[in-house]
Amino acid sequence: MQIQITEKIQTSFAAQTMMSTLGAHLDQIERGAVSITAPILETARQQHGFAHSGMTFSLGDSAAGYAALSLMDVADEVLTAEMKINLLAPARGELMRATGRVIKPGRRLMVVSAEVHVICNGDETLVAILQGTMVPLSGPSH
Amino acid sequence: MQIQITEKIQTSFAAQTMMSTLGAHLDQIERGAVSITAPILETARQQHGFAHSGMTFSLGDSAAGYAALSLMDVADEVLTAEMKINLLAPARGELMRATGRVIKPGRRLMVVSAEVHVICNGDETLVAILQGTMVPLSGPSH
Amino acid sequence: MQIQITEKIQTSFAAQTMMSTLGAHLDQIERGAVSITAPILETARQQHGFAHSGMTFSLGDSAAGYAALSLMDVADEVLTAEMKINLLAPARGELMRATGRVIKPGRRLMVVSAEVHVICNGDETLVAILQGTMVPLSGPSH
Amino acid sequence: MQIQITEKIQTSFAAQTMMSTLGAHLDQIERGAVSITAPILETARQQHGFAHSGMTFSLGDSAAGYAALSLMDVADEVLTAEMKINLLAPARGELMRATGRVIKPGRRLMVVSAEVHVICNGDETLVAILQGTMVPLSGPSH
Repeated sequence: MQIQITEKIQTSFAAQTMMSTLGAHLDQIERGAVSITAPILETARQQHGFAHSGMTFSLGDSAAGYAALSLMDVADEVLTAEMKINLLAPARGELMRATGRVIKPGRRLMVVSAEVHVICNGDETLVAILQGTMVPLSGPSH
Repeated sequence: MQIQITEKIQTSFAAQTMMSTLGAHLDQIERGAVSITAPILETARQQHGFAHSGMTFSLGDSAAGYAALSLMDVADEVLTAEMKINLLAPARGELMRATGRVIKPGRRLMVVSAEVHVICNGDETLVAILQGTMVPLSGPSH
Repeated sequence: MQIQITEKIQTSFAAQTMMSTLGAHLDQIERGAVSITAPILETARQQHGFAHSGMTFSLGDSAAGYAALSLMDVADEVLTAEMKINLLAPARGELMRATGRVIKPGRRLMVVSAEVHVICNGDETLVAILQGTMVPLSGPSH
Repeated sequence: MQIQITEKIQTSFAAQTMMSTLGAHLDQIERGAVSITAPILETARQQHGFAHSGMTFSLGDSAAGYAALSLMDVADEVLTAEMKINLLAPARGELMRATGRVIKPGRRLMVVSAEVHVICNGDETLVAILQGTMVPLSGPSH
């Protein structure tokens, strides 16, 4: 993958204050697949002390969005048009990892998915799956 | 509505650290409809300075979940089974308000929806709609 | 609404063999809102004799698609990018009516919704809600 | 897998008149995975002569539902609570095949997915992905 795209994703990620609020960092960037990891902070919980679904969604949606961006032109931006999340199990653990993938690239729309796992005492549990649509926005050079 | 349910929703909301991280508070609690409002904090942005979709989802999902809880028994809990969000416009503004509603109550499943608006210089814009399913979890008295 | 658009929707609808297989007809065409009605035929049932979810989806999706088309240029076409359906009650009755609406028009994407009712002995029941995205395809004159 | 479950799925499928209207038949039944195949009939088209999205949905939803049923007790029934479909490409071809899978089994809810392919001149194209929730209904023996 072009170094430019990797740098672009890192720069965009760093500019998302929500990601630093959640303590998230980019784990892995490949063409069409991006992983994001975050500790489940005290500040991102629901009423029973598990990770809030908003954290699960944030990581899954961002991983899917950057997976889409990894296949776009360097000047392009990406927007989530829509995203569906099914929550499979309580997000109980120390660490959350979301992996986004491009299912179908396209110039107008990119269909993406994401899986979110939680790591608890070394055991990994699938806690959510996401399926959605990203829209490429052409950059100034277009 | 029973005072007990209102208090229960307030207690549950206060226990969600994600809600205080986002600066959110309960706006209105009615039978089958709950509103949550939050300022769009510097710490909840995406890369262009608008509210992160994770914030939009968090508020919409929580408002829908508490709308469902407002129709349940006092001892019950509520879990999101799945939620779909369509993002309609950039969430640019000072304040975000999510209003959740119960479309179809049920003992096993509650179908819910939410609308999320952003207030910018006094103008209100619909930025997202959500549609999903909540699951009642019976409390200890059941 | 331009007569041209109404005629175009009628022509497109007539060309969908699935609609005649289901016995469906256009009920009402307004700017941004279209209704489709069909009897629940013996040939469109699930295993308990209610309308098959595929019929409910077909009517809801088509009503939403034509609602979107009603706001487009005469030369444009419309495609469903994605659609989410929540099934609320068994579709038991004689007649099904789907009403599609445009929630947010746009040049690139149109966010739509639909409600599907079943009429049984004169009583109308909401059996499904849909939320999705339509994509305008520019016609030859563009 | 128990012969009883296989027979039950075959009996239920045969009772869905929508499946015979679409010319569909059960392709493969395994524990947690079911395939359904159908020719793209003249009677199941949209306005451009491709398979109607209602056909794509019907096959995907039914394959996912029977995948869920394959993991349930013999006396249980299954209902679709909700389903999301992303349409990836025009369904142009002779044959459509939907494969449903259980992502997360459960006593109250089963999260499922499906992929729908179209075969055109021997080439297979992924035309849709579905993600949704099935609800087990306890049979009379429970």
